[in-house]
Amino acid sequence: MSLVTVGTVAFDTIETPFGKAERVVGGAATYISLAASYFTKDLNLVSVVGDDFPDAELKYLKKRGVNLEGLEIKEGQKSFFWEGRYHNDMNSRDTITTELNVLADFNPKLPASYREAKYVMLGNLTPDIQMKVIKQMKKRPKLIVLDTMNFWMDIAMPSLKKVLKKVDVLTINDEEARQLSGEYSLVKAAKAIHKMGPRFLVIKKGEHGALLFEGEKMFYAPAMPLAEVFDPTGAGDTFAGGFIGYIAKTNNVSFENMKRAVIYGSAMASFCVEEFSINRLKNLRAAEIKARVKKFHKLVAFDASK
Amino acid sequence: MSLVTVGTVAFDTIETPFGKAERVVGGAATYISLAASYFTKDLNLVSVVGDDFPDAELKYLKKRGVNLEGLEIKEGQKSFFWEGRYHNDMNSRDTITTELNVLADFNPKLPASYREAKYVMLGNLTPDIQMKVIKQMKKRPKLIVLDTMNFWMDIAMPSLKKVLKKVDVLTINDEEARQLSGEYSLVKAAKAIHKMGPRFLVIKKGEHGALLFEGEKMFYAPAMPLAEVFDPTGAGDTFAGGFIGYIAKTNNVSFENMKRAVIYGSAMASFCVEEFSINRLKNLRAAEIKARVKKFHKLVAFDASK
Repeated sequence: MSLVTVGTVAFDTIETPFGKAERVVGGAATYISLAASYFTKDLNLVSVVGDDFPDAELKYLKKRGVNLEGLEIKEGQKSFFWEGRYHNDMNSRDTITTELNVLADFNPKLPASYREAKYVMLGNLTPDIQMKVIKQMKKRPKLIVLDTMNFWMDIAMPSLKKVLKKVDVLTINDEEARQLSGEYSLVKAAKAIHKMGPRFLVIKKGEHGALLFEGEKMFYAPAMPLAEVFDPTGAGDTFAGGFIGYIAKTNNVSFENMKRAVIYGSAMASFCVEEFSINRLKNLRAAEIKARVKKFHKLVAFDASK
Repeated sequence: MSLVTVGTVAFDTIETPFGKAERVVGGAATYISLAASYFTKDLNLVSVVGDDFPDAELKYLKKRGVNLEGLEIKEGQKSFFWEGRYHNDMNSRDTITTELNVLADFNPKLPASYREAKYVMLGNLTPDIQMKVIKQMKKRPKLIVLDTMNFWMDIAMPSLKKVLKKVDVLTINDEEARQLSGEYSLVKAAKAIHKMGPRFLVIKKGEHGALLFEGEKMFYAPAMPLAEVFDPTGAGDTFAGGFIGYIAKTNNVSFENMKRAVIYGSAMASFCVEEFSINRLKNLRAAEIKARVKKFHKLVAFDASK
C-alpha cells in the first residue's frame, strides 16, 4: 500500500568509539524509506536537499523503489548537516554541529500522486511542517504515524499538541513520554497521551526495547542484546521505517499486526546499528530479516503452561 | 526440594513519594524466603537478628513454612537496620542510615539438617560469609545462586571472585555486570562472567526486565509496566526468591525451566512493589501468581509466522 514519508535527507558526521564517518548520508526520511523499502515499493518521499547532495545517493534511493517526486532540490543551497559524537556507552551523545541550511525554510509540497496515500509517516521535524503534510492529504489516510522528540516539546508544545490530535500513532522515547504526559509511570503516561489524540503509542527504550499501547492493551518488544553496537545513528528512524513498512505491506492496523510491526521495526533497528550510516540497510536480504524476527521470538518465548 | 537461604533479616525505614514506613520488616533473606514460600515448603533460613526482632514476625515466617533453626538471636544486641529515601522516579534512592549491629560479626552456622540441601540461595552479603555457607554444605548442592552488588565489587573483589568460582547462577544488575566484567555490551559481559564461574547469569534491569544467559543462549523477560510503584524495596530479593523457589519446586535446572523461573521471579517482584515492606507478599494467592505469569506471557506474545 502507498506510503508517504516526510523527514530530513541529510549529511551526518558521526564519531563513535569505533571510528569517525565524515559527511555520510543520513536523515530521518532516508533511514525510514530505506527500512520501509524492504516491505513495500509504493514509497513516496517528501523532503528537501541542496545541490550538494550526491546524485548517486538519490539514484540509489530510486533503485530501492523510493519515489523522489516530492524531493525538492534547492540550487545554490546546502543540505541539512548534523555532527555528533557518541560517548563510550553509546547510549548518549553530544551534538557538535547542527546546520539547518535548506531546512530553515522548508515548506513541504506534496505532488498530486501522493495525496491519496493510505499511510503517512511523519519523521521528526517541526510540528508545523508535519501538520502541513497532513493538511495536503486529499483523503484521511488509514494510518498517520508521527515521530517527534523532546526538542519540540521544549520549544513548540502548542503546535505539537495540535498535530497530535490528527495522528493515530505516536513514537517517542520513555523520557519524552514522561515529559509530554507529566507522568512518571509509562502506563499512566500512555493513558494521558491517548487523550491527546494518538490511539496507539510506541515508546522506544533503545537497548531496553519498545512498548506498544492501545487503550488497556500493552505489548513489550525486547531489543536484541548485541555484542557490538557500531553506530546508533538512525536506529529510531529505522525502527519507524520497519514499523510503517510492515504495516503498509500487510495493510492491517489491528493491535495483533501492530505487535509484529514493532518487532519488524526492532529487527531493522538491530541491523542498522551494525555499521556506520545507512550501510547495513543497503545490503539486507529478506531471509536475514525473517531470521532476525525469529530470533526476537525465541528471545522472549517461554512455556507458561508449566 | 530443600532450599537453604542466607541473608539479612532486618528493619527498614523507607520513605517514598507515597509515604514513610518506620522500622518495618525487611532484609534480603526475609524477602527471598517469603517469595519462595509460595513454591516450596522445605525452606531453611540462615541469618542473625538481635533480641529486638518481634516474635510475631518470626512466628509468621514459621507459619509460611520457613525453618528458623539457622536463625541466630543475639541477646542484648540490635538487628541490622537500613534507612533509605527514594527519589521521585523510584529508580534511585539515597541511603540515610546503615547500622550493621548484629551483622558486624555474623558467622553463619548451618544446622546439620541444612547441610544436604539441594538448593542454596546466597542473598546479598559479604562474599566471605557467602563462602562460609558453601563450605558448610556436606554435598555439592544441585544449584547455588549468588546475589551480590557493586559495593562488594568496590571493596572485596578478590573474595567475590573466589566465591564466584563456586556458584552456578549469579544475579546482578546491568551496571554491576558491566563493572564486574569491564565490558559495556551485556552479551560480552555475560561471556566474561561465565568464565569467572557461573554457568548462568541473570541480569536484573529493574523496570526494563531481566536477561538470562547460559553460554550462547539468551532469554529476555520483560518487567510488567505498572501504573503505580509503591515501594521498590526488596524487589530484587523477591525476584531471587521467586526464581529459586520455582526451581526448587520443579527440581529442574534446564535453560527452558530457568526461563520460567525468571518469569516467576519477575511476577513476584511485580507484586512486591505494590505495597510497603513485605506486606504484599503476605497475602498472595496461588491463582493471582499464575494469572500474573499469564499476563507476562501475553505481554510479549506475537505470531512470528506472518
